[in-house]
Amino acid sequence: MSTQYIKEFLDGFNEIGRTSKGMNRIAFTKSENEAKSLFKEICNNEGLSTKEDEIGNVIARREGEDPLLPPVTTGSHLDTVTNGGGYDGTTGIVSALEVVRRLNSKKIKTHHPIEIICFTAEESSRFGISTIGSKFLTGKLKINQMKDITDKSGVTLKDALEEIGKSVDKIKSAQKQSKSFQSFFEVHIEQGPLLERNQKDIGVISGIASPTRYEVVIEGKASHSGTTPMNLRSDAFLGAAEMSLAIDKAAKKEVVEGTVATVGDCVVLPGAMNVVPERAKIKIDIRGVNSRSKLEVSNEIKKTAEKLKNEKKLKVFINLIMEDKPVNLDKNIIESIKKTCNTLNISFQNMVSGAGHDSMHMSDICPTGLIFIPCKDGLSHHKEEFTSLDSIKIGCDVLEQEIIKSAKMINEERKAMEE
Amino acid sequence: MSTQYIKEFLDGFNEIGRTSKGMNRIAFTKSENEAKSLFKEICNNEGLSTKEDEIGNVIARREGEDPLLPPVTTGSHLDTVTNGGGYDGTTGIVSALEVVRRLNSKKIKTHHPIEIICFTAEESSRFGISTIGSKFLTGKLKINQMKDITDKSGVTLKDALEEIGKSVDKIKSAQKQSKSFQSFFEVHIEQGPLLERNQKDIGVISGIASPTRYEVVIEGKASHSGTTPMNLRSDAFLGAAEMSLAIDKAAKKEVVEGTVATVGDCVVLPGAMNVVPERAKIKIDIRGVNSRSKLEVSNEIKKTAEKLKNEKKLKVFINLIMEDKPVNLDKNIIESIKKTCNTLNISFQNMVSGAGHDSMHMSDICPTGLIFIPCKDGLSHHKEEFTSLDSIKIGCDVLEQEIIKSAKMINEERKAMEE
Repeated sequence: MSTQYIKEFLDGFNEIGRTSKGMNRIAFTKSENEAKSLFKEICNNEGLSTKEDEIGNVIARREGEDPLLPPVTTGSHLDTVTNGGGYDGTTGIVSALEVVRRLNSKKIKTHHPIEIICFTAEESSRFGISTIGSKFLTGKLKINQMKDITDKSGVTLKDALEEIGKSVDKIKSAQKQSKSFQSFFEVHIEQGPLLERNQKDIGVISGIASPTRYEVVIEGKASHSGTTPMNLRSDAFLGAAEMSLAIDKAAKKEVVEGTVATVGDCVVLPGAMNVVPERAKIKIDIRGVNSRSKLEVSNEIKKTAEKLKNEKKLKVFINLIMEDKPVNLDKNIIESIKKTCNTLNISFQNMVSGAGHDSMHMSDICPTGLIFIPCKDGLSHHKEEFTSLDSIKIGCDVLEQEIIKSAKMINEERKAMEE
Repeated sequence: MSTQYIKEFLDGFNEIGRTSKGMNRIAFTKSENEAKSLFKEICNNEGLSTKEDEIGNVIARREGEDPLLPPVTTGSHLDTVTNGGGYDGTTGIVSALEVVRRLNSKKIKTHHPIEIICFTAEESSRFGISTIGSKFLTGKLKINQMKDITDKSGVTLKDALEEIGKSVDKIKSAQKQSKSFQSFFEVHIEQGPLLERNQKDIGVISGIASPTRYEVVIEGKASHSGTTPMNLRSDAFLGAAEMSLAIDKAAKKEVVEGTVATVGDCVVLPGAMNVVPERAKIKIDIRGVNSRSKLEVSNEIKKTAEKLKNEKKLKVFINLIMEDKPVNLDKNIIESIKKTCNTLNISFQNMVSGAGHDSMHMSDICPTGLIFIPCKDGLSHHKEEFTSLDSIKIGCDVLEQEIIKSAKMINEERKAMEE
């Protein structure tokens, strides 16, 4: 099967919002809207009906033989981060379109309806919160929150919605009930280097590692860099340095659990060449699917804080700013994906997702499968983000089988395909 | 001898530029000018003649019995850092005034003239360069530089001078020749904690430790904090942390030489919670009077850079931005000050100055002595900067003897005082 249509779909979306610095289809802007219009157009051409919900998620429906059965759903998002790439999210939409196109082309009918969901505003670039569309669809984002969430220009989420013709005041809860979906599948680029390094085609995701985040402030005493002897200093930045290295070491001990920890920022005050630092503020992000393992790293923060207090006379303030529980994906679907890979002679590896995805929320309301494909150099959220058409095709092959199984193919080709 | 006049002088100057956040007599502003006017007024009342040079240094002269002999000079500065204290610099001016007042009151005459120099713009707060007045007086600041030096508002040093009525175009070199001064003495607060901790009245300064400064940029690879395994990271901030701790350790080994090293700032890019840091930039300040000892610390930067390159696959760019040679002060004057302390039963300790002072430049053109007095908690450049009137009085006692010796007292009291 060729990659011709995959390329056409991909190129179509990536014509929109392309700049010399990367893709810019920012949430709730004209360019995201344009991409959603193209999505609707393609779906309509394939004979699907489309509707847009109150927040801007587009749902395209391929009717099932029994329209009352809950739909099998698949999808991802078309918005990008600022100066992002052309594959994060887009790959999942393109894969869903390709699978439906194949089913149509092969005249495959299913008992369950099939719906492609194009989630809006998955990226947090604009409003600082991610997966707005899937949070809303699964009832996690409340209407009154929308007036308080603002972008960097001060535009509220409510205003942004009104700009694209949505009326927040008319929004009722869009929450779906568990029974309303049969399943959800998402194909996504890995955004990490493992599949490429291990030369595997598919990552079968067992869980999504939500972050635990801390902001730690270390307080010492500002003094003159020239006149304060080394043994009489209380240097906040050195405390931050020691803590950051300790966190790194603790996470490295948890490498078999896949736990990771990052100090992504450090701000030093007053930050002058000739002043011993008085304050240092670090941002810590710990992720993993094993809660015990994550806790080991969190405990290292506390241990180091005690050490800094006792040995270096520093004050340490630990502020937990987020602690989401890891998400475990549906075991039956995981086994099913592995079986499909084996049947199709596709190499795969079990892995967890370090990044959050719309699947994270969908898994709360229906059995969910997340399928990774390799991503060149692990590079993502970058204009050089890349995955090959062949990799996407393999993702489509797996997705197609899963959708056919979950939506229950009814025509004669079924037997041949399942053998 | 009471501290009455010391208090009057000090209170007079510190009425000027006082704010709730600290003293603000910024270089070449109305408040520095006002302080200099008060200085002239006090000098004139004590019978001294005053003149102001082309850049704004005020020189007050107490005539000697032989006006052709080179003057013995003493002084400091009246400008402050932004939100500074009332003692840094001001103490040296007040001490000089008190000593002249005492000589007048005791009708002591000297062979050499005595001059009090009130240097302008010692602090670097405004123009980023320090000791502008003494640099100019000693021929180190060239006229053409003044058009290129700007403050944060973009005002050039030339403009600032013109605002206070100076005409840069008319400035000839104000450089003094070595023969034109007999000696220079400066009383200054320590700006560090040693005298207070060791309960000494006076610090006898043997040298001034000019800084060697580096900016080090460490470059790794930005990647997703959730999807990049610990063993596949190239984290620039962890490199900066390791280097900063290594510098600290190296400086602590040099503690007997009094060498100090500080990483005063660290900037992390992109500085986001969910991105492994791509770049980290640290500012390093190394000071000491022993060049070999300073070099040991500098070498540690290079050693750690090699280690980070080889073991962590980080790129390290080391940029030397300043390397001034340490200044050794006049040995005869050092011995003379110690002798005076012993004679007057004043406790003292030998020490080096970690901070730069006008004395640094004066020592290039005449034998120079720098006398430290304690400073509460080592706190300086801060509104809570403090030294007691008693400490200043002891500084004056020592300064008085040194000036009398250097200027050669001629009347009968001499013998009695020298015994």
